[in-house]
Amino acid sequence: MKPINVGLLGIGTVGGGTFTVLKRNQEEISRRAGREIIVKMIADKDIDKARSLAGSDIIVTDNAHDVVTNPDIDIVVELIGGKTIAKDLILEAIAQGKHVVTANKALLASHGTEIFAAARDQGVMVAYEAAVAGGIPIIKALREGLTANRIEWIAGIINGTANFILSEMREKGLSFEPVLDQAQKLGYAEADPTFDIEGIDAAHKITIMAAIAFGIPVQFDKAYTEGISKLTQEDIRYAEELGYRIKLLGITKRVAQGIELRVHPALIPKSRLIANVEGVMNAVLVKGDAVGPTLYYGAGAGAEPTASSVIADLVDVARMQTADPLHRVPALSFQPDSLTDTPILAMQEVQTSYYLRLHVIDKAGVLAEITRILADLDISINAMIQKEPGDDEDTVNIIILTHKTVEKNVNAAITKIEALSVVTGQVTRIRIEELNS
Amino acid sequence: MKPINVGLLGIGTVGGGTFTVLKRNQEEISRRAGREIIVKMIADKDIDKARSLAGSDIIVTDNAHDVVTNPDIDIVVELIGGKTIAKDLILEAIAQGKHVVTANKALLASHGTEIFAAARDQGVMVAYEAAVAGGIPIIKALREGLTANRIEWIAGIINGTANFILSEMREKGLSFEPVLDQAQKLGYAEADPTFDIEGIDAAHKITIMAAIAFGIPVQFDKAYTEGISKLTQEDIRYAEELGYRIKLLGITKRVAQGIELRVHPALIPKSRLIANVEGVMNAVLVKGDAVGPTLYYGAGAGAEPTASSVIADLVDVARMQTADPLHRVPALSFQPDSLTDTPILAMQEVQTSYYLRLHVIDKAGVLAEITRILADLDISINAMIQKEPGDDEDTVNIIILTHKTVEKNVNAAITKIEALSVVTGQVTRIRIEELNS
Repeated sequence: MKPINVGLLGIGTVGGGTFTVLKRNQEEISRRAGREIIVKMIADKDIDKARSLAGSDIIVTDNAHDVVTNPDIDIVVELIGGKTIAKDLILEAIAQGKHVVTANKALLASHGTEIFAAARDQGVMVAYEAAVAGGIPIIKALREGLTANRIEWIAGIINGTANFILSEMREKGLSFEPVLDQAQKLGYAEADPTFDIEGIDAAHKITIMAAIAFGIPVQFDKAYTEGISKLTQEDIRYAEELGYRIKLLGITKRVAQGIELRVHPALIPKSRLIANVEGVMNAVLVKGDAVGPTLYYGAGAGAEPTASSVIADLVDVARMQTADPLHRVPALSFQPDSLTDTPILAMQEVQTSYYLRLHVIDKAGVLAEITRILADLDISINAMIQKEPGDDEDTVNIIILTHKTVEKNVNAAITKIEALSVVTGQVTRIRIEELNS
Repeated sequence: MKPINVGLLGIGTVGGGTFTVLKRNQEEISRRAGREIIVKMIADKDIDKARSLAGSDIIVTDNAHDVVTNPDIDIVVELIGGKTIAKDLILEAIAQGKHVVTANKALLASHGTEIFAAARDQGVMVAYEAAVAGGIPIIKALREGLTANRIEWIAGIINGTANFILSEMREKGLSFEPVLDQAQKLGYAEADPTFDIEGIDAAHKITIMAAIAFGIPVQFDKAYTEGISKLTQEDIRYAEELGYRIKLLGITKRVAQGIELRVHPALIPKSRLIANVEGVMNAVLVKGDAVGPTLYYGAGAGAEPTASSVIADLVDVARMQTADPLHRVPALSFQPDSLTDTPILAMQEVQTSYYLRLHVIDKAGVLAEITRILADLDISINAMIQKEPGDDEDTVNIIILTHKTVEKNVNAAITKIEALSVVTGQVTRIRIEELNS
C-alpha cells in the first residue's frame, strides 16, 4: 500500500524524538498502520542540524512553506510552536488539503476553533494528542473513550515542571527558589519559567480538555490562572499534617451556572491516587456520569513521550483518512455544529472549599472577630487549628478549612480579615479539591 | 443524518446499563456521534423484563436470531456471555454484514482470531472495549494511543473481585474466607467465585491485551493462571513489612525468548502508583519504549462503567463506518496479515524474582542447607529475614527474597527445600514484580 509521506516542521526536542522513534519502530508502526509512514521532508531554521539528522533520503529546507506546499506531502507535523508562524503554516497546510498533526497547545487553546473549522471545510484532520499531557493518550480517551458520558469534571496534574517543584519542596523541605534553581539545572524548567510555574501552560491544556469534554469552543482567555511561586514550605507542611498534598491542578467542571475553567494550587486528600503522582509525571482524573472516575498517568513531556503522541496521531490519520470527512472523529469530539455557548464562569462565582492561613496576634477575642466575619459572609468552617506560638513570638498561625463556599465571599472575607488590627500580613488562601464527587 | 440502529442481545446488568446510559445521555451522544444511536430491538430470554425496560417503541423478542437477521439493525451488541450461543450469534451477525460490539472476554480470549478474521472478510467491525477493565478505555489506549511504541510489558489489576478481597484482607487483617463471604454478600463476588479468585477472568483479559500489544493471535489456552485463594494474612503482613503490597496481576511481557502471559498474585513495591489501587477498582500499567510507563485507572466492572465502554464502541462504529474497511483501526491494532507467531513462553521459562516463605525447625545449620540448595540452582538471594520463634514454638518463618531467576530453578529449589527434614510443611512462593524497567 502507498506510504504516507510526512513533512516535519521543526526538528527540536519533539521533532528529533519523532524522527528517532518513527525510524526505530518503523516495522511495528507499519504493521499497525497498514502502510509505511515516512518522513519525506524536514524544515528547520538550523538546516545543518536538520541535514545531519536526516541523512540523504530526506529533503531538508529552511523554508517551511516548501513543505506545506509540496504536493507529495500527505501530513504536515507542526512542531515549531508559538502562535504566529505556526498558525500561518497550519492554515496553509490545511488549505493545501493536507492533514495536520501538532503539539502546539498555546496555539490551539487560543485559535483552535478557527483552525478546526478550516480543517473541516477542507475535509482534513487536525490531530493534537501531543498538545496535552505529553505521552498520555488523554485526548483520545476524552474524545473517543468516554463518549458515552456526560463529563462532570476534569482535574489534572498537567505541568511536569510545577509538579517536580512541589514534589521536591515537600520531600526535601526546601522552599520554592532553590528547587526552581535545581529544576532549571536539570533541564525541567526553562530559563524563563513563567509559563510553567505560573500555570499558563497548564491553562492551555485544561482549556483544550474543557472544549472536548463539554462541547464548547476553546477559550483560553477566560481561564483563571494562578501559579505556585508563592507557595511556602509552611503551607506544604500544614497541608500534610491535615492529610492533604498540594498540587498545581488544571480543573474544568460543569456546574448549573456554567463551566469552571481554572488553574491553581490545590490541597487534595493524600488518599487519592492522583495525590501520589510525583516528580515530572502527569496525570488526568476525569469524572464521567456513567464510568465514574478514571485516571490517566504518564510522562507529560520529553522527546520520546511526546513523540509517542505525535506518531499515534500519524497512525490515526493513516487509518482514518479514507473515512467520509464528516464522519471521522470530530477534532473536539463534538460535531462542529453541535458546540454550545455554555458560559465560562468567572472565578468569583466558582464554589469550592478553602484553606486559609492567618497570622494573628495571640490575644483574647481574635478568633471571635474572625469567625464573625466568616459567619456574616455565610462561610462555614470545617476545621480550625491554632498553632502554638513560638517562645519568642507573640503571633500565631491559624489555619481554617472552610466548607464549600463561593469564591467572591472568600475574597470579601479575606479583605475584611486583613483589615483587622490583630491580623498581621496577608491571608494565605489555597483552594481545596476533594475530587470525590 | 440517518440514525444508527442497535440490536441488544441480553438485557442483564450490562445490557440494562447500556440501555439506561444511551437513553439518559442521548443528546450528548448524538452531538458526538453526529447521528442518533437508537436501540431498535432487544432480545432476552426474560421477555417480560425486556418489555418492561424497553417501553413500546422497541421490538422485543426472545429469539436473538431475529435481531441478528433484521435488515434494519446496523450494530449488534452481544451481552449474553459464554462461548457457544454468543459465538454463533456474533458470527451470524458478521455474516449478515453487521458491526458487532461485545463485552465477551471469555469468547474473544479463545476465539477472537477466528471472529476478527470473519469480520475482516465481511468488512465489518468487531469492537470490544468493554471486554477488558470495564469502563477504562484501555483497548483504545493500546490499539490507538500507543501505536508509536514497541510495547515492552503490561501489568494490570484487572479483576475487581480479587482486588477487593486483597484490599480487605490487608486493611482489616482478615483471612481469605470471611472476606470472600463479605464480597459475595456485597455482590462483588459470584456464588461460584472461581473465575474471579482463581485468575481465569484476569487471564482472559491479559490474553486479549497481549494480542493487541504484541501483534500475536489470542491464545488463552497458553496463559498461566494462579489465583489468590491460598494467600494468607501472614504473607500479606510480611509483604507490607518489606515495603510491598500483594496484588493479583495479569502480566504480559516481551522477552528475547518469546512472550510471557501469566496471572498470579505478586508483591509490588508500595511506592508504585498501581500498588495503591484499592477495592474493586482496576488499573493497567503499560510500558512502551518511547512513552515509558503509562497507567489507566477506573472501574473495572458494574452496569454503567461497562456500558460506558459499550457505548464508546457504538460511537466509534458510527464515526468510522464510512472508512474503507481495510483502513479502519484493526481489531487487534496490528493488521491481520501482520500478526506474528512469537511463542508464548512456558511458565517454567519465565524470569522474575521471588518471595519464599519457609517454616523451619529452629536449629543450627538450617540456613546453610537452604542457601546451599539455592546457590546450586543459581538463585541469588536479595534479602533473608528470620522471624523470631514464638514462646511455645520450635519452628520459625524464614522469608527469602531472591534476585531475578528462572522459574524452573525456583521450582526445583522448592522441591529440594521441602524435602529437607528441618523444613515443615510447604514453601510459600509469591512472585515479585518491581514494575520499574
